[in-house]
Amino acid sequence: MPRIRRGIMRPQMNRRSLLGAGVALGAGAATTAVATPARAQAVDGADAIVDTVVVGAGLAGLAAARKLVAAGKKVLVLEARDRVGGRVHDIGLANGGTIERGGQFTGPTQTRLQALADELGVKTFTGYNTGESIYYTADGTAIRYTGALPPMDNDSYQALGQAIYQLDTLASTVPVDTPWAAPKAEELDGQTFASWIEGNVTNANAKTILHLMSNGALSAESRDISLLWILYYIAVSGNETNPGNLTRLISTLGGARDSRFVGGPYQIATKMAAALGSKVVLKTPVRRIVQSGGSALVVADNLVVSASSVVVALPPTLAGRIVYSPALPATRDQLTQRFPLSSIGKAIAVYDKPFWRDAGLNGQVAALTGTTRSTFDNSPPDGSYGALLAFLDGDQMRAVEDKSDATVKQLILDDLTRYFGSKAATPTEFVLGRWDAEEYTRGGAPGFTPPGVLTRFGTAIRKTSGVIHWAGAETATFWNGHMEGAVRSGEQAAADILKG
Amino acid sequence: MPRIRRGIMRPQMNRRSLLGAGVALGAGAATTAVATPARAQAVDGADAIVDTVVVGAGLAGLAAARKLVAAGKKVLVLEARDRVGGRVHDIGLANGGTIERGGQFTGPTQTRLQALADELGVKTFTGYNTGESIYYTADGTAIRYTGALPPMDNDSYQALGQAIYQLDTLASTVPVDTPWAAPKAEELDGQTFASWIEGNVTNANAKTILHLMSNGALSAESRDISLLWILYYIAVSGNETNPGNLTRLISTLGGARDSRFVGGPYQIATKMAAALGSKVVLKTPVRRIVQSGGSALVVADNLVVSASSVVVALPPTLAGRIVYSPALPATRDQLTQRFPLSSIGKAIAVYDKPFWRDAGLNGQVAALTGTTRSTFDNSPPDGSYGALLAFLDGDQMRAVEDKSDATVKQLILDDLTRYFGSKAATPTEFVLGRWDAEEYTRGGAPGFTPPGVLTRFGTAIRKTSGVIHWAGAETATFWNGHMEGAVRSGEQAAADILKG
Repeated sequence: MPRIRRGIMRPQMNRRSLLGAGVALGAGAATTAVATPARAQAVDGADAIVDTVVVGAGLAGLAAARKLVAAGKKVLVLEARDRVGGRVHDIGLANGGTIERGGQFTGPTQTRLQALADELGVKTFTGYNTGESIYYTADGTAIRYTGALPPMDNDSYQALGQAIYQLDTLASTVPVDTPWAAPKAEELDGQTFASWIEGNVTNANAKTILHLMSNGALSAESRDISLLWILYYIAVSGNETNPGNLTRLISTLGGARDSRFVGGPYQIATKMAAALGSKVVLKTPVRRIVQSGGSALVVADNLVVSASSVVVALPPTLAGRIVYSPALPATRDQLTQRFPLSSIGKAIAVYDKPFWRDAGLNGQVAALTGTTRSTFDNSPPDGSYGALLAFLDGDQMRAVEDKSDATVKQLILDDLTRYFGSKAATPTEFVLGRWDAEEYTRGGAPGFTPPGVLTRFGTAIRKTSGVIHWAGAETATFWNGHMEGAVRSGEQAAADILKG
Repeated sequence: MPRIRRGIMRPQMNRRSLLGAGVALGAGAATTAVATPARAQAVDGADAIVDTVVVGAGLAGLAAARKLVAAGKKVLVLEARDRVGGRVHDIGLANGGTIERGGQFTGPTQTRLQALADELGVKTFTGYNTGESIYYTADGTAIRYTGALPPMDNDSYQALGQAIYQLDTLASTVPVDTPWAAPKAEELDGQTFASWIEGNVTNANAKTILHLMSNGALSAESRDISLLWILYYIAVSGNETNPGNLTRLISTLGGARDSRFVGGPYQIATKMAAALGSKVVLKTPVRRIVQSGGSALVVADNLVVSASSVVVALPPTLAGRIVYSPALPATRDQLTQRFPLSSIGKAIAVYDKPFWRDAGLNGQVAALTGTTRSTFDNSPPDGSYGALLAFLDGDQMRAVEDKSDATVKQLILDDLTRYFGSKAATPTEFVLGRWDAEEYTRGGAPGFTPPGVLTRFGTAIRKTSGVIHWAGAETATFWNGHMEGAVRSGEQAAADILKG
């Protein structure tokens, strides 16, 4: 039986006095009961003793815990928020539907996510793709088109095609496990994607589309990311039997945005969590991990757990905010200093019906101006109501950071009205996910590396530190930064621990 | 009189039980007595109440505290380490001397540091510069020379001169207060310094020296940093009446490495700390800052202080690890995700006498191979014993991160022997500062920004967050990243608080 004791570093012990002074520490008491791990010997000072503590109940952490529990291990998952799912979160609408605030897409070669969804009985469906997309040029001209790429003159097409071929060819030289070992890795990692575009592409239209692709695929500007990082990101857009390629990474039909989950992907997280039951403890931010003699003490705001191993299933930048004793090696710490999350926001405008379909539009926009420059039809599979998804990527997200929700809403509705007509101006509901502002997220999927980081610090991304294993979408070797990558990373961490 | 109470979140309350389990939380009890601030009303839950809490007792934090105390404010400085000084630290040698483990140089236009040293009675002296420097080419050829730049053919000189002129000209367009507002800021911030060199310089020797300059001036590779950042770094290498320029930034004589402090710069920190007395509390890492109703509760491992204002005088990457309640705005948080510290190590080999002087050498090496590629004569002003300073910058520091101190020592002594002969192989003492590995430093001065950061997140660098003011060398508008910048930033934060 566990020894549940409470005698160490618990802010809520003095919450009343702090609240009395008009301040709150922001650490809620755990509402979920502590698990009941069983082990012969209790470590003095710990509330519970388990085999593995998983830090973070996103898809990665939950997938790791699920595998470990299936193998008979005692596991506790500590989650900072009041919900599981991390960067995956759906919410219920007034109209009875469910909408995806966070990660939502899946597609071909995302095999582990699909297998997990199958196991849990969550179905997928192909996103709405009937009709034409709209491309808004810099001068505001709207061009309707079908297919993956906006219409351009033949020269531009050819230049763009050649650039994509070059990027795919370079990406094919990047090993998914060890991108830092790619031929010419240093040269590729020494420049931004923007520099590569400016130096290798002369056609103006092709340049424009390539810069836009950085936004669409990574929610980061081409100037933010290392060329080696985007090549790596292309390389991992596949699986063991299908090498990654840029077209799959950026495409809707047949690509990373091919399909959605009926009822939303949050079910994958909540079903995993339900199966884990009281092994998942919410509102318990982990602050410190103390290693000694082959085990660890994981210190959260309101819980201390002793474990033989730890899975930190957080983006590198958040993992770097935990206090480690002993301190982690320089390479690992520096990696977390240099691996930011992208700037991303996501808005969903809900309507009585998907009215744009009547106009022959598929809901997809690619625009060179506006607050949102990338939209999708986010209606449910039966089209019983309409929903438009509007992304805010990179610079566009940064531009609204100081603005109120009401202002952001209006800016987006103005854009949607410009794109889809006056009916777009009056949604029945409006959902805004400002991921950069959320305390326990602080940016969108994906994380990325600026120049110089992958070649010099990349080796630390999955290298265990004592009994600590690193997981999370940013550690994945396929579909890094995607839900598929999160699941893979968690399952891999569990497999590594079970291997011993 | 203060109310010193201890009833909240104190690891040492349970240190014994944790230590009994074979683990330590890494938080020592405060050895310095808590200050005695006076205020009418004590905030419930706080151990002490002051006007301003300064987080970090480096030069910035101490300079801020000094100014505030001089203006009659009640101040408490909380420092994580068991010493003050931050990235400035000298240690005593067995031979009775003192050697600089951290920041050590000063020079013309570093007026605030000079004024502070004058006030505190710490003298400066011009570093040893008599004789010839050595330049080691990639094939190991040693070339002796005098002056600021290694000897090259005329074409190379001309190409290098032109590149420096271009960089200075571009830097002159970068405002020291608002570098993000420079003309073409986005284009300049969209590329690495490496890309600029490769795209704008054709002469191979000139290229090599420019890449080397990045290492020497920033301890970062040219691929790590944004072009806008190095232009900014050049622009701030001056003061109100002397615009910055590259030559001053990289030079020894007349430049950033012109002079040293008699007895070492650590005295500046320790003398400030001595004057502050018990207002400086060591071994007290701040973990959380809770703001409410115009005041803040600063929560350290073993102390909780209430204050009207807070100065966080830490590098951005470390400031980002504190838990803020309410959470900081996205721009500020993202800035701290994208503002790493450089990779730096520093070794000093001590000898009975500065024997290289007899050979007509000034102790300065610039090399294209080796573990240390940049050395200086670090002997005391009277030359009563000899000391060679060997930097490990960027890639060279990264390359030894997994190696033991003994191995690093041998690698450096091998280099010094190659540079200065067999006498260099047997120092009487050897001091190694592995700054990247130190828990409360985690990298060298300076911090820097990769592409895309200054233009999109730079505005957050000094923007107050409620009652929190940001200081530290990385926030300075002159000599950013240097001791001068640290002092300026602290004094500026104090002035801002006093202005109200």
